[in-house]
Amino acid sequence: MAGPTSASTTIVLRLEIDKEKATFGNIATAIGEAGGDIVAVDVNRPGRTTTVRDITVNVMDSQQSKAIERVLNDMDGVQVLQVSDQTFLLHLGGKIEVTPKIAIKTRDDLSRVYTPGVARVCTAIHEQPSRAHSLTIKRNTIAVVSDGSAVLGLGNIGPLAAMPVMEGKAMLFKQLAGVDAFPICLDTQDTEEIIRTIKLIAPAFGGINLEDISSPRCFEIEERLTQELDIPVFHDDQHGTAVVLLAGLYNAVKVVRKRLEDCKVVLCGVGAAGIACTKILLAAGVRNIIGVDRDGALVRGKSYAHGAWTWYAEHTNPNGEAGSLSDVIDGADIFIGVSGPGALKPGDVKRMAPDPIVFAMANPTPEISPEEAEGYVRVMATGRSDYPNQINNVLCFPGLFRGVLNCRASRVTERMKLAAAQAIASVVTSEELNEHYIIPSVFNQSVADRVKDAVMAAAIEDGVARRRPR
Amino acid sequence: MAGPTSASTTIVLRLEIDKEKATFGNIATAIGEAGGDIVAVDVNRPGRTTTVRDITVNVMDSQQSKAIERVLNDMDGVQVLQVSDQTFLLHLGGKIEVTPKIAIKTRDDLSRVYTPGVARVCTAIHEQPSRAHSLTIKRNTIAVVSDGSAVLGLGNIGPLAAMPVMEGKAMLFKQLAGVDAFPICLDTQDTEEIIRTIKLIAPAFGGINLEDISSPRCFEIEERLTQELDIPVFHDDQHGTAVVLLAGLYNAVKVVRKRLEDCKVVLCGVGAAGIACTKILLAAGVRNIIGVDRDGALVRGKSYAHGAWTWYAEHTNPNGEAGSLSDVIDGADIFIGVSGPGALKPGDVKRMAPDPIVFAMANPTPEISPEEAEGYVRVMATGRSDYPNQINNVLCFPGLFRGVLNCRASRVTERMKLAAAQAIASVVTSEELNEHYIIPSVFNQSVADRVKDAVMAAAIEDGVARRRPR
Repeated sequence: MAGPTSASTTIVLRLEIDKEKATFGNIATAIGEAGGDIVAVDVNRPGRTTTVRDITVNVMDSQQSKAIERVLNDMDGVQVLQVSDQTFLLHLGGKIEVTPKIAIKTRDDLSRVYTPGVARVCTAIHEQPSRAHSLTIKRNTIAVVSDGSAVLGLGNIGPLAAMPVMEGKAMLFKQLAGVDAFPICLDTQDTEEIIRTIKLIAPAFGGINLEDISSPRCFEIEERLTQELDIPVFHDDQHGTAVVLLAGLYNAVKVVRKRLEDCKVVLCGVGAAGIACTKILLAAGVRNIIGVDRDGALVRGKSYAHGAWTWYAEHTNPNGEAGSLSDVIDGADIFIGVSGPGALKPGDVKRMAPDPIVFAMANPTPEISPEEAEGYVRVMATGRSDYPNQINNVLCFPGLFRGVLNCRASRVTERMKLAAAQAIASVVTSEELNEHYIIPSVFNQSVADRVKDAVMAAAIEDGVARRRPR
Repeated sequence: MAGPTSASTTIVLRLEIDKEKATFGNIATAIGEAGGDIVAVDVNRPGRTTTVRDITVNVMDSQQSKAIERVLNDMDGVQVLQVSDQTFLLHLGGKIEVTPKIAIKTRDDLSRVYTPGVARVCTAIHEQPSRAHSLTIKRNTIAVVSDGSAVLGLGNIGPLAAMPVMEGKAMLFKQLAGVDAFPICLDTQDTEEIIRTIKLIAPAFGGINLEDISSPRCFEIEERLTQELDIPVFHDDQHGTAVVLLAGLYNAVKVVRKRLEDCKVVLCGVGAAGIACTKILLAAGVRNIIGVDRDGALVRGKSYAHGAWTWYAEHTNPNGEAGSLSDVIDGADIFIGVSGPGALKPGDVKRMAPDPIVFAMANPTPEISPEEAEGYVRVMATGRSDYPNQINNVLCFPGLFRGVLNCRASRVTERMKLAAAQAIASVVTSEELNEHYIIPSVFNQSVADRVKDAVMAAAIEDGVARRRPR
């Protein structure tokens, strides 16, 4: 699974080369010595005495990029005209487009998709509004909505800066599950305004994927919208993480031959994701979960600043274990990290039960690095793509929304989330299963399909499906 | 220009045919006798004794469709399994989709368009928000926003039923000008809520096309949004109609060798479109415009129920002509109808000045039919595709938004609208120009390009362009 580190990037150097003074060989050598890895060369504008070439180079970071630029500019007969960064180039003009499903070639076509023919379709929907689910994009389209308040590890960067993430998500929805997703970034962080705005724009959509909205506002926004709208609302940062975590755990306990229900679980970081992970584990039958935040383990009877923690303390930690993470980790079978770098020490792992399972999901730097944990843990998972066992929401959201759209589900139930987790876990066969392969790759084509089927079956069982696909 | 009437439709009949009892010849004859025109036959499921065929048939209307179905079901050995309507089939699942501009094939691709690479792009926008215009879909994407309160001739059918129109519009934006347009239908008809919601969703968009919002709310919504947002806001029902009308008039007066400034213009229907048409004519130098509504010509000094009419009376009708349409039409050079069927009588046209120009734009039935007007009018235009000289907004909106996006205009000025009208008119050369060809076809490829260039030049002149395209 390990490959080129994800932090690397690719740059394109546009060079004007004086043919009499510099050769491509000199230039290639200079780039190589400065640490760059040439992957492509294109002649852009050949001339009599000078030539302009685009040289594509893999570099570690922007410092290395600048070093290469300096070295080349110092060479006689070479001038760096431009340095483009592939990541930025890919973002020029945005990453998604809105395209017609058919071309309008004739006046007849026009009169069917637009006036006057379209009027009959409008009238049919006006007479029976549920027809919008089949005669408009509502059938296959969801909104990816953010207020930009908790974007990646970047925090509250606002709606404009959040757009590239939402566009990336829309790409994944389409590519992995054929779901049309459109990014809506809201210029407000007021809970009531967010709820009201999403309700007002809902007619076009068959589902709402909430994204990167900070806690605790995300709880109320999701809850209220689920009650007040008749289409599914799903805050991916909470439930996507929870579903994929559970999928990983289903397989991790198989590796160590334990039953999830019997495991002692310590979860570090009782925020939006942590609470959602806890809820899905409780729904999956886990009984002994201890949540730890800055002030230590949450214990029944203590008073907490916000309602979510009070709820948490009342529904977890049946043995009332108090103290710091290091205190309560004793004898734990599973550690779940949704907090920050370095929260778990090698010494803590040593005091866990035999065959410890550690899911250190803080991004980009886990609670404990796989290198530090090596030798102590039996099964280790992170949120990173450059280590084995990546817990990535991409495994859940495309298939889940594919399923809810296909069966026109009115909401996402607990059973549907559990079914999604089981479906993801099931992609790894018992022959393939081992410590380093408990969860499928994000590029595994069968994941979205399995999740879709499982989610639909659960939706039908729970009575929230408004259509039974053939 | 006349062709199959736009009201016709195409149906697909799925028939199960007992080979021993009925032949395809019998069936084809029966369909023909019932008035249907067979255009295609597909064998769907051949069997030993029966065959299933899909027969595509052009019909006039749904009554004829039902008659054909009845005739076929009465035939021995024929069973109609299904009748599908092409217009409805084209609408299944909606008419647009959201597609990635590049495929994510490798982990490297994923790390550039999504986490972790996307974080650098987010940060760059956070540091300088104007970068969103180049690094996100804002560069090429507009919202087509409606509240469903005044859709086509259907009236207040609400947001769900309005969707097919907005989707059709999005198709045209992309096909004719490469503009990505996404339909947003709002579940409110409250002016303040509409304004607030559009402001809150604006970050993703480079422009707002308001659509099918009823008068007088549409005036305040557009005005306020133009003041409060830094992207262009354009209510197409008002200004799109006005721009294309003016384009047609520029060429119509050339045909009759008059100067637009010297013409007496009578406009019937002082609603949103009528007021916008009047404003653009005033901006184009027309001095004598008389607006007529239900209570007759609007005259300075009278008191009117709403502000728009008071404004109108104060800025038009310099000679204070009072009375009904038939009274004020005397000696008019131009009649503009944005009202309803039958508003203009042949007798009225007879009393106009020599070489009368009549733009009867009510849809689908004009103020006077070309048949009734024939012999009296010199130049006639309607909103219909089955007569010459169709005044269709499609000639304006794609190129106009292409222009404003290309130069990152902050608003649409009067000069930009006038420039768009001149550009549309200019597509018809002086050699081509005649009574029956004053305006280009909606399929004329050069219209959007001309409009784009003209709009950009005007935006730069007015100082509202934030970018000068190369």
